[in-house]
Amino acid sequence: MPDYVVGIDLGGTKIMGAVVDAKGKMVSRVMKLTQAERGPVPVLDRIVDVIKEAVSASAGGPADRKRIGMDNIAAIGIGSPGPLDPDKGIVVFTPNLPGWRDIHVVEYVEKATGKKVFMDNDVKVGVLGEQAFGAGRGVRTLIGLFVGTGIGGGVIIRGKLHRGFSKQAGELGHTVIDYKGPKCGCGQSGCLEAMASRQAMCRKIAEQVKAGKETVIRETDPMQITTRMMVDALRKKDKVVTDVMTDALEILGIGIASISHVVSPEMVIIGGGIVDALDDEMMDVIVNSAKKRALPLVMDNVKFVRASLGEDAGVLGASVLARQGLTGER
Amino acid sequence: MPDYVVGIDLGGTKIMGAVVDAKGKMVSRVMKLTQAERGPVPVLDRIVDVIKEAVSASAGGPADRKRIGMDNIAAIGIGSPGPLDPDKGIVVFTPNLPGWRDIHVVEYVEKATGKKVFMDNDVKVGVLGEQAFGAGRGVRTLIGLFVGTGIGGGVIIRGKLHRGFSKQAGELGHTVIDYKGPKCGCGQSGCLEAMASRQAMCRKIAEQVKAGKETVIRETDPMQITTRMMVDALRKKDKVVTDVMTDALEILGIGIASISHVVSPEMVIIGGGIVDALDDEMMDVIVNSAKKRALPLVMDNVKFVRASLGEDAGVLGASVLARQGLTGER
Repeated sequence: MPDYVVGIDLGGTKIMGAVVDAKGKMVSRVMKLTQAERGPVPVLDRIVDVIKEAVSASAGGPADRKRIGMDNIAAIGIGSPGPLDPDKGIVVFTPNLPGWRDIHVVEYVEKATGKKVFMDNDVKVGVLGEQAFGAGRGVRTLIGLFVGTGIGGGVIIRGKLHRGFSKQAGELGHTVIDYKGPKCGCGQSGCLEAMASRQAMCRKIAEQVKAGKETVIRETDPMQITTRMMVDALRKKDKVVTDVMTDALEILGIGIASISHVVSPEMVIIGGGIVDALDDEMMDVIVNSAKKRALPLVMDNVKFVRASLGEDAGVLGASVLARQGLTGER
Repeated sequence: MPDYVVGIDLGGTKIMGAVVDAKGKMVSRVMKLTQAERGPVPVLDRIVDVIKEAVSASAGGPADRKRIGMDNIAAIGIGSPGPLDPDKGIVVFTPNLPGWRDIHVVEYVEKATGKKVFMDNDVKVGVLGEQAFGAGRGVRTLIGLFVGTGIGGGVIIRGKLHRGFSKQAGELGHTVIDYKGPKCGCGQSGCLEAMASRQAMCRKIAEQVKAGKETVIRETDPMQITTRMMVDALRKKDKVVTDVMTDALEILGIGIASISHVVSPEMVIIGGGIVDALDDEMMDVIVNSAKKRALPLVMDNVKFVRASLGEDAGVLGASVLARQGLTGER
């Protein structure tokens, strides 16, 4: 079997691709803008371009690196925003890519490259990457939560991405926190995502600004509040921002507790831009809340760690997806 | 390998035992009162008595049944109230059995019988029984919820009881519904158990009686309200009882939705005395709430069914636990 696979991380803004060996070493890594506004087919073509360029780039390395060509690529893995059907290889719909409705990504890329292609949800693939090559290395059962505009997650059980019957398992952002709580983008009420995502934090901060509360933030439009502003305000001990974020992180901990009662992970990996920017003291707010809200037997000895692969989690996870797909493990 | 195992269901009131073949056929079934007030050792001895009597009873069957003796018993499975440590075979503590603290059940029964013994939480073992021989036959990934005084549950993933890192996974009664909600027995707030168990329903009905609301129920003490009274009141279209129970069943559905986002089961099995007594219309309250509160892709085509083994779920599940334990599958 050829030693390499290509991992692709398809995002609304950019497409990343890497040629990856079995140990998670990236022998090349390329990036292109997605240009999502041009519609599905141009984006699919750009995915194929990224694959080809990643392979070419890996072939052009130092002399001590063996030449890698398409023949050395065993398969391709793709992490894509969803919802998607991983078995059929179809992106059903995604707010991040305008005009995408039932797009047969896997079929298109397989035809264009002649390789087996495997696809799953981008965040779940990222959690798989962290489990294989990042913060979760060697851990068999873990959950990962990524706090961004929304909250994405993934569940690894016995070393594999848990997909469940619908292949949609691991939608951790839609864990209920307050069944009569704020509306979520999914249409429900009081989901974790509606209460502890960056968007939820910004909304609450903006409300306080509008209400005339004393804070270093001046924006009344939540969309204008950046991660940078929030982290600066935290450093300045701004009460409004500190309180809003503490509440949100406590709620994140409660969600982790609730999920842990179901899954009982050995490790909880937490990532995403806003979390990456937090100091350890704020991270402890999450951990302490989770420990306080869970049955001690479930939470004893559970490790809480930061995601460690940054933006490489996607391509590395996609490489694992490709390998597991080939061996029928996934 | 001998063809039979013994399944034991240890309860606060009674101990049930059965000799069970590989297809889930009980060739004998015996019951003794637990007499929990006599303390741990007498109860352990009664478990051993039940095992021996179940084997003797199976040996005394009709002429066309082959004689079964202790030599034909491959292993013993026990479902016990928890919390417990299934690996060490220790019941850590349990409110149902006074004086039980770190009781080495497995070791005791192994010494007394000379057989391998496997133990897990009674409700989880019951879900395993339903999966193997009851409502969930042939279904690989499912969740089970049993509504009683509390709410117990279990998660089956790929045909096995999911235990997770702590071996305590599947504590579905402690799924969060309302993070600022009513106190739960576990010390947290707004758990499913605190809001949708029989106890929670009775508490709310009693409050309404005290408040002078018009209802056929007369009891102001929640402990005096029986399942029979509640079901009779439902039949009489009693508004107080109907409203309280509808709210509780909707909340149960919300809990199922939240859990399903994590696990994505193919089937949801619902049981327990109060649920068994509900008509199909009230069962639909649970199903409709779960479907309304979950992402459609997760909940599409999920089957909602009633538990079908009644009080035999425990001994049958314990027999599966024993067999899986022997083959290292569990």
